[in-house]
Amino acid sequence: MHHFSKTVKKEANQQVFGIRAVMEAIDSGKEIESLFIQRGLSGELLKQLKALLKERDINYQQVPVEKLDRMTRKNHQGVIAIISPISYQKIEDLIPVIYEKGRVPLFLILDGITDVRNFGAIARTAACAGVDALVVPSRGSAEINPDAIKTSAGALYKIPVCRHDNLAQVVKFMQDSGIQIIACTEKTDKSIYIPDFKLPTAFVMGAEDKGISDQLIRNADHLAKIPMFGEIDSLNVSVSAGVIVYEAIRQRLG
Amino acid sequence: MHHFSKTVKKEANQQVFGIRAVMEAIDSGKEIESLFIQRGLSGELLKQLKALLKERDINYQQVPVEKLDRMTRKNHQGVIAIISPISYQKIEDLIPVIYEKGRVPLFLILDGITDVRNFGAIARTAACAGVDALVVPSRGSAEINPDAIKTSAGALYKIPVCRHDNLAQVVKFMQDSGIQIIACTEKTDKSIYIPDFKLPTAFVMGAEDKGISDQLIRNADHLAKIPMFGEIDSLNVSVSAGVIVYEAIRQRLG
Repeated sequence: MHHFSKTVKKEANQQVFGIRAVMEAIDSGKEIESLFIQRGLSGELLKQLKALLKERDINYQQVPVEKLDRMTRKNHQGVIAIISPISYQKIEDLIPVIYEKGRVPLFLILDGITDVRNFGAIARTAACAGVDALVVPSRGSAEINPDAIKTSAGALYKIPVCRHDNLAQVVKFMQDSGIQIIACTEKTDKSIYIPDFKLPTAFVMGAEDKGISDQLIRNADHLAKIPMFGEIDSLNVSVSAGVIVYEAIRQRLG
Repeated sequence: MHHFSKTVKKEANQQVFGIRAVMEAIDSGKEIESLFIQRGLSGELLKQLKALLKERDINYQQVPVEKLDRMTRKNHQGVIAIISPISYQKIEDLIPVIYEKGRVPLFLILDGITDVRNFGAIARTAACAGVDALVVPSRGSAEINPDAIKTSAGALYKIPVCRHDNLAQVVKFMQDSGIQIIACTEKTDKSIYIPDFKLPTAFVMGAEDKGISDQLIRNADHLAKIPMFGEIDSLNVSVSAGVIVYEAIRQRLG
């Protein structure tokens, strides 16, 4: 399960500046956590960078030069890349490996969880429970930075994290691979104690404010709710993830 | 379940200075979260304060004057009290009320959980799950301050918190009241899925570093462990609390 070299581990959120340096970083296999390009920047070299980004399926954000200036005092030449401390994986590479090992897949899809501490705590739980991987969207997810790593108690170095542009496509691919999708949401009366989690399963967890996106709710095989009995009726999302993942563990142990 | 007046709610960790003012605060029924008395302070008025503290079973800490000076720039006269935003309760008052309501008691005893965010998150979970009360020690527990209230999503205003000098005595009292004590610890092979939580139950959770005190481990009716399957083998304590409390909920619903 551990595809991370010791050297990559140490480079927590190193910044790389300038078009050439960023292209070299990508060519040398470094994982880009975020990439910021100055709005209005042009030139032949930038075209080459954009072609490379397209080829490698790497997202970037166009930002005002002031944002880049705030990120560093160095000569950034309009381009700053933040290198990820971990190597992201692709779900289509991972699923066959899990089945080949004779494991019953268990995934956590994190739909827009931007709070770094919650993200880290979920990774920690997932690693403890033997979840096969976390799946996050390319945009609108917590940055995997030193705080996330720390809150995860190092779990983010242990558990595979898959990053994809389109979670709806991931869900479709998982369903085609025989994995049921359980959306953990309050928008149902069905409790988490009803579905059969001994089947290959991916849980979808949403952000505490916005919840799971409508499309993922629609495409899920089951909606499932953690029962609530008090005046406070929403759990912290990292606690919710723990409760539902361990319900799967309980069913599988029993 | 809600014994807190609106006015007390607003007074999040107000400070009271000076011996007379502190005595008046106590006399008027304010709840003392912490009390600091300058080391070496003496006098007739202090004797009166100490007699009152003894009578009301209120703890205090003797500290160097520098600590008091750091807490306020006002003329503290050697004594600073921090007023709690909540009203603490006593377990011996609460248990009969719970039984009279026909409820099967469910408690969380927090043995030395000092991290304010974990404490708040546990309170939030407890309120969601309908836990009857939290029990904390008078010393060595997280201060109930605005951060704790915020992380609890207001749950600390909803769920009763019992504060006692001696948790071993609380455990004994609970056992005498027909409540089983489950220590949630890694120091056992028995999983949390084995005991019968349909019985009146109190879970003991320990701090992430030190765990549950030896005495409470010895006096517990059962030790119970959340199963672990990865290279990371310790959950965040607020996640652990969620997992074990919801295992009780599951059993009771079933």
